[in-house]
Amino acid sequence: MSSTIWSVDEHLEDILAAVSPLEPIELQLPDAQGCVLVEDITVQIALPPFDNSSMDGYAVRTSDVAGASEEFPAVLTVIGDVAAGSGGTLRVNPGEAARIMTGAPLPPGAEAVVPVEWTDGGTGGGPAATMRAASDAPEGASGEVRVHRPVEARAHVRARGSDVQAGDLALEAGTVLGPSQIGLLAAIGRATAKVRPRPRVVVLSTGSELVQPGEQLAAGQIYDSNSFALTAAARDAGAIAYRVGAVTDDAETLRATIEDQLIRADMIVTTGGVSVGAYDVVKEALSSVGGEDGTGGGVDFRKLAMQPGKPQGFGSIGPEHTPLLALPGNPVSSYVSFELFVRPAIRALMGLEDVHRPRTRALLVADKPLTSPSGKRQFLRGTYDKEAGTVTPVGGAGSHLVAALAHADALIVVPEETTEAEPGTEVDVVLLG
Amino acid sequence: MSSTIWSVDEHLEDILAAVSPLEPIELQLPDAQGCVLVEDITVQIALPPFDNSSMDGYAVRTSDVAGASEEFPAVLTVIGDVAAGSGGTLRVNPGEAARIMTGAPLPPGAEAVVPVEWTDGGTGGGPAATMRAASDAPEGASGEVRVHRPVEARAHVRARGSDVQAGDLALEAGTVLGPSQIGLLAAIGRATAKVRPRPRVVVLSTGSELVQPGEQLAAGQIYDSNSFALTAAARDAGAIAYRVGAVTDDAETLRATIEDQLIRADMIVTTGGVSVGAYDVVKEALSSVGGEDGTGGGVDFRKLAMQPGKPQGFGSIGPEHTPLLALPGNPVSSYVSFELFVRPAIRALMGLEDVHRPRTRALLVADKPLTSPSGKRQFLRGTYDKEAGTVTPVGGAGSHLVAALAHADALIVVPEETTEAEPGTEVDVVLLG
Repeated sequence: MSSTIWSVDEHLEDILAAVSPLEPIELQLPDAQGCVLVEDITVQIALPPFDNSSMDGYAVRTSDVAGASEEFPAVLTVIGDVAAGSGGTLRVNPGEAARIMTGAPLPPGAEAVVPVEWTDGGTGGGPAATMRAASDAPEGASGEVRVHRPVEARAHVRARGSDVQAGDLALEAGTVLGPSQIGLLAAIGRATAKVRPRPRVVVLSTGSELVQPGEQLAAGQIYDSNSFALTAAARDAGAIAYRVGAVTDDAETLRATIEDQLIRADMIVTTGGVSVGAYDVVKEALSSVGGEDGTGGGVDFRKLAMQPGKPQGFGSIGPEHTPLLALPGNPVSSYVSFELFVRPAIRALMGLEDVHRPRTRALLVADKPLTSPSGKRQFLRGTYDKEAGTVTPVGGAGSHLVAALAHADALIVVPEETTEAEPGTEVDVVLLG
Repeated sequence: MSSTIWSVDEHLEDILAAVSPLEPIELQLPDAQGCVLVEDITVQIALPPFDNSSMDGYAVRTSDVAGASEEFPAVLTVIGDVAAGSGGTLRVNPGEAARIMTGAPLPPGAEAVVPVEWTDGGTGGGPAATMRAASDAPEGASGEVRVHRPVEARAHVRARGSDVQAGDLALEAGTVLGPSQIGLLAAIGRATAKVRPRPRVVVLSTGSELVQPGEQLAAGQIYDSNSFALTAAARDAGAIAYRVGAVTDDAETLRATIEDQLIRADMIVTTGGVSVGAYDVVKEALSSVGGEDGTGGGVDFRKLAMQPGKPQGFGSIGPEHTPLLALPGNPVSSYVSFELFVRPAIRALMGLEDVHRPRTRALLVADKPLTSPSGKRQFLRGTYDKEAGTVTPVGGAGSHLVAALAHADALIVVPEETTEAEPGTEVDVVLLG
């Protein structure tokens, strides 16, 4: 362990330099949601794949309905129905019309579609509001229809390829697959996509004092909250998160637990045991977790010029060099550390371009100046008011104010060189989303 | 079916008036993530539950170290270790010190903690940088320690209850449980929370023309994209979403499929079959899906003054009166309809207060005016530039431009009374997140 003090930026830089995006895999569309595409997707087949009707109506030849009006309708022979999905055996000859449904292929011979509302719907009465259901009135697919208005060629026809053409670039590599991108992939016939998978992140807290919520506390014990909060935060960041829960302060137990977990981990996050105490077993255990060949045993423990979150560990373990971030054990310190270091690392594993939370500037609202130790970057919990452009601290600077954290939606950043931030001045704010 | 034309707002109002938040259930914390709490949570036990050390160091009586310096250290007898989780059997008498770890209970007799860096760490040498690991150097828990600096009473001690007191309100009913709220609940010993569960939303598309992506298209067929896009969108909105996939245009099949699905549905979303065609089986089937007692058969099909998305169905089905939204079949129409009607309904089921997407105003960037039919609210796909405060349409007004939709991150709203929106004017924008 070095006695050098590292800056927040140096530590983050080292982490991001060491974390590479996960190898891409081919996933079914529903499993690819939220993932980053790694291939350019080219359209294989034009959309729509054939000329089709954009209305429920009648497919006609335009010359047959030229000059038609409600008073002097064009009377056409209905030769049958063209339903959506129809293979198309009908042909519209002069004097004929095919009843056609939205999305159904325009039959040969027809040049346009007359909406059903511009006809009598084959009833012999006035203008139709709707077609009769085929199941109720099969005769609607035959007989005569009176058309009340002319149409131009191609009216109410969606042309083949009018959405995309074969060969078009549908989506670029790097696109994050949200609902409408998944919709586009399905629409062009892709059942799968090559994406970077969600990282599997194993979260474990350490500390012999930790008891699971719902159990009784004995003297000197507290509840394990870190494994719950950070598992939720990892999931929120896009990971598949596994909560291992609290491990006792015994180096052998911790080592065995971590070695067990490596099989399902793209990243491991621990809390506690990283400081200068006599039972800081994360430090003790992690210097020797490695593969048979002794690789991947390098976890570096550092002091950072930040508050909270001074002691931090980062490195890789096991034969696959799985990244491991060892965070301090205090709940607020570990949460702030997660936001600053783990979340960007998860998003880097996902292959996302923008790994950081949005930041903004806001006017500080406070009763008195915020004080901050010189040379340390301080992160205070706050509530951000977007309308007013202000941020207000909640709770104090103490790193144990987990209650205040639960009411914050922002981190107020007080830089290293600032020892006092006056109310009314502008400060940097990390928006926690 | 009424021939009245309904406004977007009327339809949405009817939906939200009919959709009630789901009944709350007690969930384990990890399952409650993203859910709305329905109870005020009161702290049962103070946090921290006991006075404890905020540093790794030595628990001392202040009078024993008064006036201590590196040159003239106070020499104290180390009576043992107080590790985190320790039940506490040690008592610090005059002239004694207990080695203590961060988070460990302050032993009786001790008044303050001296950080290890202010001592020789029991080595007899100069100032210590760290404690020796207990497993390596068990003698650190005994012998003598030289203290180099005095401390005030309570120094480096976190007082019992300094974070929260028993009886304090930890979280209010209505809070959405994110990572830090889950952390707080765990910290105060809660293993579960009473929340409104995520709604289970069943998505099915209808249309005999629909083929699953990855299969071969025959003449007249297209790929089913709606069930993929809307399942992803439902999940994105917070639901547990089930994709049933495409159902053929046969009323009996559709009815049987929906009746089957009711068992796992808090809401059903269909696409297609809601217009005026002869095979619009959603309309045909849904008028008679009900319980044995004939309840819940009321699905109302309407024409809305909007583009795209004119034909819409909404009502409830089955013995539980499960809400059902029947969206038009065109991919862009169904997606826009989902955003406007289904997403708010899902978020209302979750009990969220704010069910709507954020909206903003932006300057329209376009080559020519946007035209919009009078009396209809038009929703165009666009890309929003936050920095510039501008929005640019992508694709045209045609409702079939699924490719353009995949490149949009906003909907441009052209109100009913506007038939032309000039470039450079301000328009309403729905941000798709």
